[in-house]
Amino acid sequence: MELITVADVEAAAERVADTAVRTPILPCSWADPNRPLWLKPENLQPIGAFKVRGAANAIARIPDADRARGVVAYSSGNHAQAVAYVAKRFGMPAAIVVPENTPAVKIEATRAHGAEVVIVPITDREIVAERLVAERGATLIPPFDHPDVIAGQGTIGLEIAADLPSVELVLVPVSGGGLASGVATAIKARCPGARVIGVEPELAGDAAESLAAGRRVHWPATDRERTSADGLRAEPSELTFAHLQKLLDGIVTVSEAEIHEAMAVLARRAHLVAEPSGAVTTAAYLHRAADLPAGRTVAIVSGGNVDPAALAGMLTG
Amino acid sequence: MELITVADVEAAAERVADTAVRTPILPCSWADPNRPLWLKPENLQPIGAFKVRGAANAIARIPDADRARGVVAYSSGNHAQAVAYVAKRFGMPAAIVVPENTPAVKIEATRAHGAEVVIVPITDREIVAERLVAERGATLIPPFDHPDVIAGQGTIGLEIAADLPSVELVLVPVSGGGLASGVATAIKARCPGARVIGVEPELAGDAAESLAAGRRVHWPATDRERTSADGLRAEPSELTFAHLQKLLDGIVTVSEAEIHEAMAVLARRAHLVAEPSGAVTTAAYLHRAADLPAGRTVAIVSGGNVDPAALAGMLTG
Repeated sequence: MELITVADVEAAAERVADTAVRTPILPCSWADPNRPLWLKPENLQPIGAFKVRGAANAIARIPDADRARGVVAYSSGNHAQAVAYVAKRFGMPAAIVVPENTPAVKIEATRAHGAEVVIVPITDREIVAERLVAERGATLIPPFDHPDVIAGQGTIGLEIAADLPSVELVLVPVSGGGLASGVATAIKARCPGARVIGVEPELAGDAAESLAAGRRVHWPATDRERTSADGLRAEPSELTFAHLQKLLDGIVTVSEAEIHEAMAVLARRAHLVAEPSGAVTTAAYLHRAADLPAGRTVAIVSGGNVDPAALAGMLTG
Repeated sequence: MELITVADVEAAAERVADTAVRTPILPCSWADPNRPLWLKPENLQPIGAFKVRGAANAIARIPDADRARGVVAYSSGNHAQAVAYVAKRFGMPAAIVVPENTPAVKIEATRAHGAEVVIVPITDREIVAERLVAERGATLIPPFDHPDVIAGQGTIGLEIAADLPSVELVLVPVSGGGLASGVATAIKARCPGARVIGVEPELAGDAAESLAAGRRVHWPATDRERTSADGLRAEPSELTFAHLQKLLDGIVTVSEAEIHEAMAVLARRAHLVAEPSGAVTTAAYLHRAADLPAGRTVAIVSGGNVDPAALAGMLTG
């Protein structure tokens, strides 16, 4: 299994520079002085999540001759928005295949970026996407299982290393593992002394179990769908799992209550709207101190696309 | 009346670099394509507001011989937090004079930054602050009526000019006028073609009336205190008014309902928690298009310190 390298991430950084926001790291004056905390607010990206980085890198690498035939993605979440947004910026057509239970608001958001939305039964998503690719000669942009997508997400790690070379711990959400694989590749190359620790919801803790077992352990989708962190319900692929096995220094899980408390802390203290998936790293910082090394910590806030009523409930609850 | 220059702002930029976050500008994919919008999220500063910039510049300029005697400020708002935060970073004692009606949560926040809090009747604030300065040989850090404070706030304008040299319109909140004076100084020097337009709440529209009259028109505090934008209840000083008269291309006012809607838009679409004062520029963008030039627009989101219950109400209201 060939892993990506920091050179791949460096090349990605040039490709995504015009599309992704160069986010700062935000010092938290309310943090434990023995474990100073900075937030990397990827919820501030154009579509509200880090996914724009991987999509931009993958789409930028499509050869000129293939561009007019467009891109295809299957996703009901932030990856769909990201591919639609980036394709529009590149002037390319995009078709997004979504399951028929996708909320209307997400379908409208995808259409607002100019994408064609193809609604199918959930079990047909991959088949329909592959048929569109074959029929149109379009390029499939997978949500995480691709070296270009992993390298794009890794640009977050390069930015952390540039802004805080003395970082000692990076907390990164784990779902399909593209973000964690890319970030760990960059951090381990640039800041070899820093630890990179993944964070999962307890209710979708398949990667934690898999890393403990030394092999990929499958959790049924019905189990993973119990978490409110809807961006963290995927499972690592062979490619991303190989990165996580080699590069992660550990993985911790957090409860639903801890995630929701972290969302309220991020809103109140950091003035950031985070979705549940984006708040897991802050939840780990707040509630897993005993399982984490002390020292200068960066928590990646991966996204902010949350139902306003749900956020309101957490602010007053 | 001697106005500050862009050279003062450039010098300030070096002084504040270690204390203030270098905020990005955030493109808004939901904006009107004819008036593309970027947000300058100063709510992400350490104490949740731009005030840390002016405080850092003013405190950095205190001579070494005077540092041990500390700083004094009178404020119940973001300026108090900013002076306390910056003084702590510089290892200097800080005394903050607050009126006796200040909410306990704000007093605790100021103490959490290591400052001494002196609680006095509201009419005694200036007198007590001046007495502390005299007794201790401390340095008073005013909230806006000082060239160093204005120059510090102006570093926002330098960053906007660097990140978007083609900017055509900058929307900036106006209260005491320090922020608007500094930003306009920088923008007019670096982007001479750009307009800088101030925004006030209708219920504290003293600067709009003053600029129309060509002289400072006083509004009673009881009038200005009607707005929920508690950071925009001050009036320009002679110094800041001279800057506003020379540099602003206009000023618009927004209603309370427009401010509160803008807060909800910022949370839902931009994933930013803004306080009412921080949302007035977005309110102007959304509701004063007829009064604003078209073109590439930057709205300064000046702060994010809002009561969580109030924000929750706006998200569901």
